[in-house]
Amino acid sequence: MTDRIPKPSIGRLCKIYTLLEELEAQGAVSVSSHEIGEKIGVGSHSVRKDISYLGEVGRVGSGYEIVKLKKYIGEKLGLDVERKACVVGLGKLGTAILQNEKLFSNNFKIVAGFDSNINKIETMVTHIPVYPAYELADVIRQQAIELAVITVPGHASGDIIDRLVEGGIRGIVNFSSMPLHAAYKEKVYVSNFDIAGEFRFLSALFTIEPR
Amino acid sequence: MTDRIPKPSIGRLCKIYTLLEELEAQGAVSVSSHEIGEKIGVGSHSVRKDISYLGEVGRVGSGYEIVKLKKYIGEKLGLDVERKACVVGLGKLGTAILQNEKLFSNNFKIVAGFDSNINKIETMVTHIPVYPAYELADVIRQQAIELAVITVPGHASGDIIDRLVEGGIRGIVNFSSMPLHAAYKEKVYVSNFDIAGEFRFLSALFTIEPR
Repeated sequence: MTDRIPKPSIGRLCKIYTLLEELEAQGAVSVSSHEIGEKIGVGSHSVRKDISYLGEVGRVGSGYEIVKLKKYIGEKLGLDVERKACVVGLGKLGTAILQNEKLFSNNFKIVAGFDSNINKIETMVTHIPVYPAYELADVIRQQAIELAVITVPGHASGDIIDRLVEGGIRGIVNFSSMPLHAAYKEKVYVSNFDIAGEFRFLSALFTIEPR
Repeated sequence: MTDRIPKPSIGRLCKIYTLLEELEAQGAVSVSSHEIGEKIGVGSHSVRKDISYLGEVGRVGSGYEIVKLKKYIGEKLGLDVERKACVVGLGKLGTAILQNEKLFSNNFKIVAGFDSNINKIETMVTHIPVYPAYELADVIRQQAIELAVITVPGHASGDIIDRLVEGGIRGIVNFSSMPLHAAYKEKVYVSNFDIAGEFRFLSALFTIEPR
């Protein structure tokens, strides 16, 4: 049944899961679809519809039990599993991501970094093992790494993706300026993020419709 | 006329603009809607429709002149204007973004960094001026900064946004774990990006529909 959830609903369910974690940490017990909708920026009807894709979820009064709903979404979407991740490209941004543990929730464990510059690999001081880029496929396969963050220049990213796919990577967050979903969408899920690109998008929005 | 362009089309036009820059740098002169579509991951019909929102753009044979199309999109969407940007939160990620000039195309100039930790501000070595967070609104107003990147913890982001809006900021890239569009969408454009959140989304996608 779950294989028919629309992609935008999957995205919102992930946001709901993150919100539930935060509410749980704050000591809340239940939450209404209206409150969820306000926090993630959609209507309460849309929240109820997204949650309904998961099957029958018990409601209490006008809301959901936070612990139960979180467990339910986590199991259905595989968010309750610890997954290994790596960072490819150890410039300033890549190194920050490699070392910034706060960025990652407990379920994602950064276990390796890669760079094509051997000198950098040999001299880098970090508590996470770093490897030369040519070992990408082997290390990913041996350690069963599922997720990767790429911060290499756009022109180098095609070759990197080939090796990630060869190693069996399942999802990629791509910080290079070249969006990657076109050529690789049969093999791996890619989420593209480019700060300059986001600045462009925001500039276009406030140029066309100033707030 | 341009005020009726749908938001997804604006997003794709920004990607087309970035692609045209890359093609121009490679020495290409013209490009077809089919080629553009392949690179940005949509159909050629969609590319032609997006471009048609801008008005009449001359075509040559089966394609577009790169220089002309780039100029056209840039003017209509305000992408040809140099804009000032700042970084709020100077932890590892914020500092990497502040200093990593390659991340930013020439039209976005990082002119200021902010952090609530005064000691950090006083001891930081950087060629970009850094200020204590309480000066946010003043510095943004005085320097006419239009864009901001936020890398502060989620719980601190509400207060920061208030000050950014007070200073007149127009667009925000938000790296904190709390999405911000709900409460502030009347005042400012926000693009949320949270790596842990993206990892969750990718995990959910390959859990539900493995590739």
